[in-house]
Amino acid sequence: MRRTLAAQVPQHGGRTVTVQGWVHRRRTLATVTFVVVRDRSGFVQVVVKDPGTLAQVASYGEETVVAVTGTATPNPSAPGGTEIVDPVVEALGEPAQTPPVELWRPTLGASLPTVLDHAPLTLRHPRRQAAWRIAAASLRGFRDTLGAAGFTEVHTPKIVASSTESGANVFDLDYFGRPAYLAQSPQLYKQTLVGVFERVYEVGPVFRAEPHDTVRHVAEYVSLDAELGFVRDHRDVLAVLRDVVAGMVEAVREHAGGSADLLDVPLPRVPAELPVVHFTEALRIAGAPEDEPDLAPEHERAVSAWALAEHGSELVAVEGYPMRKRPFYTHPQTVPTPDGQWSNSFDLLFRGLELTTGGQRLHRYADYRAALAAAGQDEAPLAGYLEAFRHGMPPHGGFAIGLERWVARLVGAANIREVGLFPRDLHRLAP
Amino acid sequence: MRRTLAAQVPQHGGRTVTVQGWVHRRRTLATVTFVVVRDRSGFVQVVVKDPGTLAQVASYGEETVVAVTGTATPNPSAPGGTEIVDPVVEALGEPAQTPPVELWRPTLGASLPTVLDHAPLTLRHPRRQAAWRIAAASLRGFRDTLGAAGFTEVHTPKIVASSTESGANVFDLDYFGRPAYLAQSPQLYKQTLVGVFERVYEVGPVFRAEPHDTVRHVAEYVSLDAELGFVRDHRDVLAVLRDVVAGMVEAVREHAGGSADLLDVPLPRVPAELPVVHFTEALRIAGAPEDEPDLAPEHERAVSAWALAEHGSELVAVEGYPMRKRPFYTHPQTVPTPDGQWSNSFDLLFRGLELTTGGQRLHRYADYRAALAAAGQDEAPLAGYLEAFRHGMPPHGGFAIGLERWVARLVGAANIREVGLFPRDLHRLAP
Repeated sequence: MRRTLAAQVPQHGGRTVTVQGWVHRRRTLATVTFVVVRDRSGFVQVVVKDPGTLAQVASYGEETVVAVTGTATPNPSAPGGTEIVDPVVEALGEPAQTPPVELWRPTLGASLPTVLDHAPLTLRHPRRQAAWRIAAASLRGFRDTLGAAGFTEVHTPKIVASSTESGANVFDLDYFGRPAYLAQSPQLYKQTLVGVFERVYEVGPVFRAEPHDTVRHVAEYVSLDAELGFVRDHRDVLAVLRDVVAGMVEAVREHAGGSADLLDVPLPRVPAELPVVHFTEALRIAGAPEDEPDLAPEHERAVSAWALAEHGSELVAVEGYPMRKRPFYTHPQTVPTPDGQWSNSFDLLFRGLELTTGGQRLHRYADYRAALAAAGQDEAPLAGYLEAFRHGMPPHGGFAIGLERWVARLVGAANIREVGLFPRDLHRLAP
Repeated sequence: MRRTLAAQVPQHGGRTVTVQGWVHRRRTLATVTFVVVRDRSGFVQVVVKDPGTLAQVASYGEETVVAVTGTATPNPSAPGGTEIVDPVVEALGEPAQTPPVELWRPTLGASLPTVLDHAPLTLRHPRRQAAWRIAAASLRGFRDTLGAAGFTEVHTPKIVASSTESGANVFDLDYFGRPAYLAQSPQLYKQTLVGVFERVYEVGPVFRAEPHDTVRHVAEYVSLDAELGFVRDHRDVLAVLRDVVAGMVEAVREHAGGSADLLDVPLPRVPAELPVVHFTEALRIAGAPEDEPDLAPEHERAVSAWALAEHGSELVAVEGYPMRKRPFYTHPQTVPTPDGQWSNSFDLLFRGLELTTGGQRLHRYADYRAALAAAGQDEAPLAGYLEAFRHGMPPHGGFAIGLERWVARLVGAANIREVGLFPRDLHRLAP
């Protein structure tokens, strides 16, 4: 018999249906047992009264995988408005062992370490599932927005001969007897590929040997990278980032609306143009000393609060970050300042925290040579990168969004480990 | 002035346009220089006659990035039927240095090692670009097909505590002082996630410390993985694989049609149902001894030739591969044989070569324990994986397609290094 998904059972009222899924919950009363079956679409209640079947489902613990054939019967008091009665139940494997955490409760009662230790199981909880469904929908929005804007998807090497930006926090690897590293970002490759495809994006893992145990950092995460050529300055990059974020929000609404509802996620309104403040102005708004080299967390919160009050926006860009706090490929501010201290780079703040860093990059070969010399960095490990600039590169820029950080902000998770599938950190390498 | 892409210039006949791109080629005659400008959309010819501009473009070597403003003028003898006359040319950076290979020639004359050594530059060649555009379109087809079929995109860890299937060909890593490995495939994680989302796919890098220097293997490649639950057997998996391949071919036609034309790629017709032969039958077709444990390359070619002749199909599945040649999670053949030697796994052959391996997996906890014991494999490193099976997993299966291998087959490349962006192998770690 053809399978019906749980969510579609109400469309089959009065007819015989077969659903397949997991025993999510059993409630046993005197003469009846209610079995809630969970599948990828949702839940359906099965009403068991037949003595033989009652004995059978008594032996099928939570998470046992079953096929249930019975009559779809409208019942206003059943979850979803339709239940399955007179069922024939078949286990599709052996009865499951009792889970170490109760997946049928509205929220997982266990501590975060326990939840992560048992991720293969705890990810089945509807709230954990929902967080990832929001992540998956966001990926779709990211790609669809950029694909429609003429971007080409790329995949760049994760095993690299030199660390991307600095030697810090990089994982070492034995590569056929030679030293190699795990890529901390696709930065240098995505710039190189602007020379090929003009507009590129990549969704892939990046690796940081982050020695600190924080709620915002993990050792491996999914980075959503974009880079585009023929820009005037970083404002063109910011305009694309705005569209990307709007596309991600729309995709969550369209493809993971149920998950957003379950987690009670307030989706942000993305203004047609993001509010932008200069770094110096951001310091002023935050009441910070004007010689601060960076925005501290409390400054970011203050700027976000200002943007919400002044512009009704949960997103705000801060541009012009000091050159000395930015990597060597950063383009200085177009409107020159006497000491050349500001840059054409930005951070995008979302609900009080940095979501994205981006900006315009240098594009002239001579500028790269000068920047590397000034930074005391050797050119040799960057030979392939520099080759692109030696042979003609357009003005360009880009940005990177950390997927887990985005989802954590969206759903209001205090720790990004709550929203990833199998997080990696200083202490955690499994499951 | 608003930028016009090269391919759109013909729509602006008689009007002033600004194009931006790379100087692809210059042809200097007595009183005129033809400059071909390349951008992400294609090419446009610029006709330079003004003495000042002639001197200017004489100093702009190939690959210099320029903005050209002039009048779009229909000319049947110009490439694309429209050229730009009376141009004002502006370099958007410094003049480019002369490339080490001539990118304007119809084919790259250099050897493969030279092409790969200069990948940042040689990828700009239209034929190299085209191969990757076919790859990118294929990814889109893969995702769109599976997204429409209720699959959830996942991203699983690339840093893992134990090697996926065996200890062979795995890259070792120092993970905060502990031993770790780079994932050879998302196999165990994607199965685990069938327990969560039922149907999952992942596009991401996989790593093989392949010690052999072959035209079909690299150390890092993009794997297109899918896994689905609630299957009857491997034939359900094969049906999804069929749809995926058809979707990839359609996406290449739709989104990279120009690239396919440029490379003269004959796109395969994907039959509504793939021809399937049993392994024993495949041996017979290939004229191989019936006790052969695997199909040798010449056998694969023979089976492909047979499928083309008998079924008019460039794709053919071989099912039932001997259990002893398959990994521990392989499900034995449903119709039992006296010695239980056959499996519910398959290879998909495409134009004489294996494209994909897939099949049904074990789904009962007891079966895993027995399979691991029989293989002499310790359960401890697989604790997270086994937890999923202990707590209810549906019958399931899946497959993996190597992106570079797929594109190489499609475009007829002899070496998969010709179609990847920055291949990694025994000898190559840069660029």
